[in-house]
Amino acid sequence: MKILLIGASGTVGSAVKAELSQRHEVISIGRKSGDFHVDISDSASIRQLFAQTGKFDALVCAAGSVNFVPLGEMDASHFDLGLQDKLMGQVNLLLIGREFANDGASFTFTSGILNRDPIRTGASAALVNGAIDAFVKAAAIELPRGLRINSVSPTVLVEAMGSYAPYFRGFKPAPAADVALAYAKSVEGLQTGQTYIVG
Amino acid sequence: MKILLIGASGTVGSAVKAELSQRHEVISIGRKSGDFHVDISDSASIRQLFAQTGKFDALVCAAGSVNFVPLGEMDASHFDLGLQDKLMGQVNLLLIGREFANDGASFTFTSGILNRDPIRTGASAALVNGAIDAFVKAAAIELPRGLRINSVSPTVLVEAMGSYAPYFRGFKPAPAADVALAYAKSVEGLQTGQTYIVG
Ligand SMILES: NC(=O)c1ccc[n+]([C@@H]2O[C@H](COP(=O)([O-])OP(=O)(O)OC[C@H]3O[C@@H](n4cnc5c(N)ncnc54)[C@H](OP(=O)(O)O)[C@@H]3O)[C@@H](O)[C@H]2O)c1
Ligand SMILES: NC(=O)c1ccc[n+]([C@@H]2O[C@H](COP(=O)([O-])OP(=O)(O)OC[C@H]3O[C@@H](n4cnc5c(N)ncnc54)[C@H](OP(=O)(O)O)[C@@H]3O)[C@@H](O)[C@H]2O)c1
Repeated sequence: MKILLIGASGTVGSAVKAELSQRHEVISIGRKSGDFHVDISDSASIRQLFAQTGKFDALVCAAGSVNFVPLGEMDASHFDLGLQDKLMGQVNLLLIGREFANDGASFTFTSGILNRDPIRTGASAALVNGAIDAFVKAAAIELPRGLRINSVSPTVLVEAMGSYAPYFRGFKPAPAADVALAYAKSVEGLQTGQTYIVG
Repeated sequence: MKILLIGASGTVGSAVKAELSQRHEVISIGRKSGDFHVDISDSASIRQLFAQTGKFDALVCAAGSVNFVPLGEMDASHFDLGLQDKLMGQVNLLLIGREFANDGASFTFTSGILNRDPIRTGASAALVNGAIDAFVKAAAIELPRGLRINSVSPTVLVEAMGSYAPYFRGFKPAPAADVALAYAKSVEGLQTGQTYIVG
């Protein structure tokens, strides 16, 4: 399979790359790093990306930013980044990318644990994750040509605990390699409309 | 209790009004109808509303629009209404309204069944509903002063089937009066961070 991996240099993405590149052609994409560059928060940039990559069999997005701010300090503007980048960035990868998807191709997006198990400063992250998991469930039933769409919802990663530990006290972190398996299940399996929970 | 009810003239809101006005002072609010007017998609309009209503013990929002469009015809712009109106409109009712909320006051928002049981044309509705249910769960744990926040997620209403039936074949509709009970549970109970599913 020809797999487009957005966020390939990241904590999640590098483990996904290690897992999938054993069996597939993985094209590494990042904002600044990788074989191709894209800013998923910008539709024009997404269109440019696909013009460069051409058709594909699977797209995995392990990128997406949100603001972490105490709720007491938040106004609507603090939600803009999550809505534009992690949420609509991934939605747009489907809406624009489907034209370049071969029959039976899959889209695998990344949400995360915070809508299931919230933390202080996590209101925007929770909102966005809940939206992504719901979107893949709904979009799946309307996709033509055997196209599939799933999300992976990991807990915090072992490899991220260096900086994230103070925010995730009491959470049992998952090894990135275990999280990467869920992406393989989505890409190499046949299910659609699923959210794969890891941890 | 002094209860602000946004969307009081609607299918859901009029049943909520009938239920809650038996025991409480319910102030009816709508875009054009009611005692006060607000456009929840506009922060300035929300600020004006609270300047007029003053402090309150409960806020219920039974308003919020999204676009229903076949996924194959959607681009990112079709998601704007749902993000700005039903989603960030309700989020903003909390972010702005909390200053006017008495200690122990509750916020009750409306999502809906489509993130749990999707239909054709429902991708934006599902995304928004999933975001709302996740937001209330996360926001609840950060609210001060005993403030509470829940959502009600109804199936399609019996009273809406006149126009909605073609989109909801096979769904068992719930009477508006039953849906209204979930809002009473949120407002008059003590739980927080919950999504009350009706139907
Ligand atoms: N780390 C965790 O423990 C964890 C747990 C659950 C969920 N998640 C979710 O997983 C996703 C990735 O997290 P991570 O920790 O792996 O992130 P990370 O280590 O910061 O890596 C982010 C990757 O995404 C790329 N990227 C960032 N913004 C982009 C944009 N707007 N357009 C295109 N590419 C962009 C970066 O490219 P450049 O390096 O070129 O800038 C980088 O390759 C996030 O959505 C995060 O919420 C992470
Ligand atoms: N009806 C159902 O079967 C059903 C099922 C599940 C969920 N829901 C959800 O419940 C909510 C209400 O649905 P409904 O069917 O009761 O709607 P509706 O009958 O169309 O009534 C909408 C109400 O909200 C007000 N409103 C609309 N947009 C507004 C805005 N931007 N700012 C302030 N007020 C606004 C309207 O005021 P004016 O009349 O003054 O314009 C009206 O009072 C929606 O979010 C819907 O998705 C409905």
